[in-house]
Amino acid sequence: MKKLTLVFLFLTPVMLKAQNTPARTILPGDTLTSIRLWPDRKVTFSMYAPNANEITVGGDFLTTPVPEKLNKADNGVWSVTLGPLNPELYSYTFNVDGVKLTDPRNSRTKRDGTRIESVLFVPGEAASLYEVKDVPHGNVSKVWYQSPTLNLSRRMYVYTPPGYEGSKTKYPVLYLLHGAGGDEDAWSTLGRAPQILDNLIAEKKAVPMIVVMTNGNPLQSVAPPDGGEVTLSRSPGAPRPGTPAPAVNPVNGLVMGKFEESLVHDVIPYVENNYRVLTKTENRAIAGLSMGGGHTAKTVFNNPGLFKYIAVFSGASINPSEDQLKGLKDKNPTLFWIGCGVEDRLLPGSKSLSESLNKYAIKNIYRETPGGHTWRNWRIYLSEITPLLFKDL
Amino acid sequence: MKKLTLVFLFLTPVMLKAQNTPARTILPGDTLTSIRLWPDRKVTFSMYAPNANEITVGGDFLTTPVPEKLNKADNGVWSVTLGPLNPELYSYTFNVDGVKLTDPRNSRTKRDGTRIESVLFVPGEAASLYEVKDVPHGNVSKVWYQSPTLNLSRRMYVYTPPGYEGSKTKYPVLYLLHGAGGDEDAWSTLGRAPQILDNLIAEKKAVPMIVVMTNGNPLQSVAPPDGGEVTLSRSPGAPRPGTPAPAVNPVNGLVMGKFEESLVHDVIPYVENNYRVLTKTENRAIAGLSMGGGHTAKTVFNNPGLFKYIAVFSGASINPSEDQLKGLKDKNPTLFWIGCGVEDRLLPGSKSLSESLNKYAIKNIYRETPGGHTWRNWRIYLSEITPLLFKDL
Repeated sequence: MKKLTLVFLFLTPVMLKAQNTPARTILPGDTLTSIRLWPDRKVTFSMYAPNANEITVGGDFLTTPVPEKLNKADNGVWSVTLGPLNPELYSYTFNVDGVKLTDPRNSRTKRDGTRIESVLFVPGEAASLYEVKDVPHGNVSKVWYQSPTLNLSRRMYVYTPPGYEGSKTKYPVLYLLHGAGGDEDAWSTLGRAPQILDNLIAEKKAVPMIVVMTNGNPLQSVAPPDGGEVTLSRSPGAPRPGTPAPAVNPVNGLVMGKFEESLVHDVIPYVENNYRVLTKTENRAIAGLSMGGGHTAKTVFNNPGLFKYIAVFSGASINPSEDQLKGLKDKNPTLFWIGCGVEDRLLPGSKSLSESLNKYAIKNIYRETPGGHTWRNWRIYLSEITPLLFKDL
Repeated sequence: MKKLTLVFLFLTPVMLKAQNTPARTILPGDTLTSIRLWPDRKVTFSMYAPNANEITVGGDFLTTPVPEKLNKADNGVWSVTLGPLNPELYSYTFNVDGVKLTDPRNSRTKRDGTRIESVLFVPGEAASLYEVKDVPHGNVSKVWYQSPTLNLSRRMYVYTPPGYEGSKTKYPVLYLLHGAGGDEDAWSTLGRAPQILDNLIAEKKAVPMIVVMTNGNPLQSVAPPDGGEVTLSRSPGAPRPGTPAPAVNPVNGLVMGKFEESLVHDVIPYVENNYRVLTKTENRAIAGLSMGGGHTAKTVFNNPGLFKYIAVFSGASINPSEDQLKGLKDKNPTLFWIGCGVEDRLLPGSKSLSESLNKYAIKNIYRETPGGHTWRNWRIYLSEITPLLFKDL
């Protein structure tokens, strides 16, 4: 009897589906494998759409922004084989008769701001940085805290390294900041910070650390998709769901610069009071990309004694004053790492920041890499800096 | 100078976009509001698709599975106004020339197993149960633990109530199980358990509690989209990404029933060793839906002294033996709650479970509600049982 019961239990979802859906024959689209990776690393993209007129596929796996056309077979399945592709985490979308869409046969998507795309992972050396491997995993918590500085209840993500729970060890902390258009979700989904840390810690390349991923938009309480309910438009002019908050708070006036203050006055105290963390200057690191690079620079030049390890990825330019440079020199940071892609329009700002540091004999590592203003680069930068953190260099 | 710097910082993403994308004129689709809710709770769905031949919209906001057609205007925007709709959290998809897709202008989606749909929230009384409100929020952590029973490193979600961090209080625990097709992500995204708990705790209707949301698929380490990399198909016959694990482990044979064992032997000890929890029988509750209702029943009948509060939502039938019923009677659970929708094919099993309990004088609450086998019902059930938990009834 026990066995019969269990079988019934597993049949249930199928039966329920049959109950709710009119009977229909199985179509090619129901069993289609939409992305197929071949041993030579070519990829076949497919979609079932017997009534469509034109289908294309686009994404960052292509070397140009021009999408590629799929060809239609007699059974209504469209497909195209592209590549070979280098090992990497790519994103792609289809376009059916002028409408862009994620792959309906791939449940793995990623959100970059308000844009959602399908994920294509080509395994191999470069991609293995952020592959989920059979190693101990750190936990990621969505943590609410009070920000008196911003007068908001806000959310951040906190990565605790494998072994944090159930131990008494105290850990150093990396504060990791995202760019414009992003939010507290960006570094863990697009940036793959938890996987990068898991892998580097497992290989003993990086020391176990806590990583705090904040929301750098000073008017935003939480990532828009999780943030209160979607504000449905009551008139055609109303903002659509996910519209970034305006840069100016209509009530309180200009809030630029306030995030950096809240990081120092609200976030760091919360983390140091609520987690088992080491709290000396040499136990704190800060890194940020693009706008978050600007936040990073502003925070460290305004608070020169707070962090010993600093990294600016494709940073939006900040020109520190002479006094600020002298102030930082006095505190002698162990690491000031600057990286930017050679195709990135922000390259001159990165170069100029390094030159300013050199002028005041603040030692720094300046890295120009291939590529542009992309998560592909920022994932690599994170994997380059984390082995340097919390060590005597 | 400082002001100039900040302005530059905020202009950056636009400039970068201009750098990477060929110049083009702004089209109606670029600024379109795809879902507009009117004061009478009618909703206008819109999509820009000048080259499409037919567009429909479907979803659980409709009373039938037949999708509604959109009408095309001269500017290439298709739309239809439907409703009025009752306050609820709905999902919808468009269909363009036979291809189903999420709304490209709505960044809020939800995943149910391998199916991704767009989210439509109609605010109002019923929906306010799980609306994100301006109340203290609990944290949700993605927690890895070892399961010797399943020989897997596995992930679960743990909700800690507002105030957990930084206090010394110990809390009771609700173990909350999902249905077939789901995973550890389901109760927090589809079931909105964190919002339901936040709101009921804020109103002092429920006591602060920890909620542990496990993965009930015994061969699955983690929700497929987060679980290792997408297994790209190397042949047309290979399983597509996100395919549920087979019910039978080709190496170890039958694993049915093993999840329930791992819950008792691995999950509960982990939670009781790593969180500040109360560990008496009266501090433990268990609830599950569909397959998880079966898991719940199996767990409590096999371990009658473990939980004082039990709830089975639309449960896949389990027929406890006489001995099991007597065993549970001896332990006298404070709450045995059974709920099912009248349109749910599993209704007879729920009814029969209640009758078996009555036969052995095990007090139970039996609720038949409108509707079927839906998250809409399970969210309501969760909001009905949580105020009863950890109280003398």
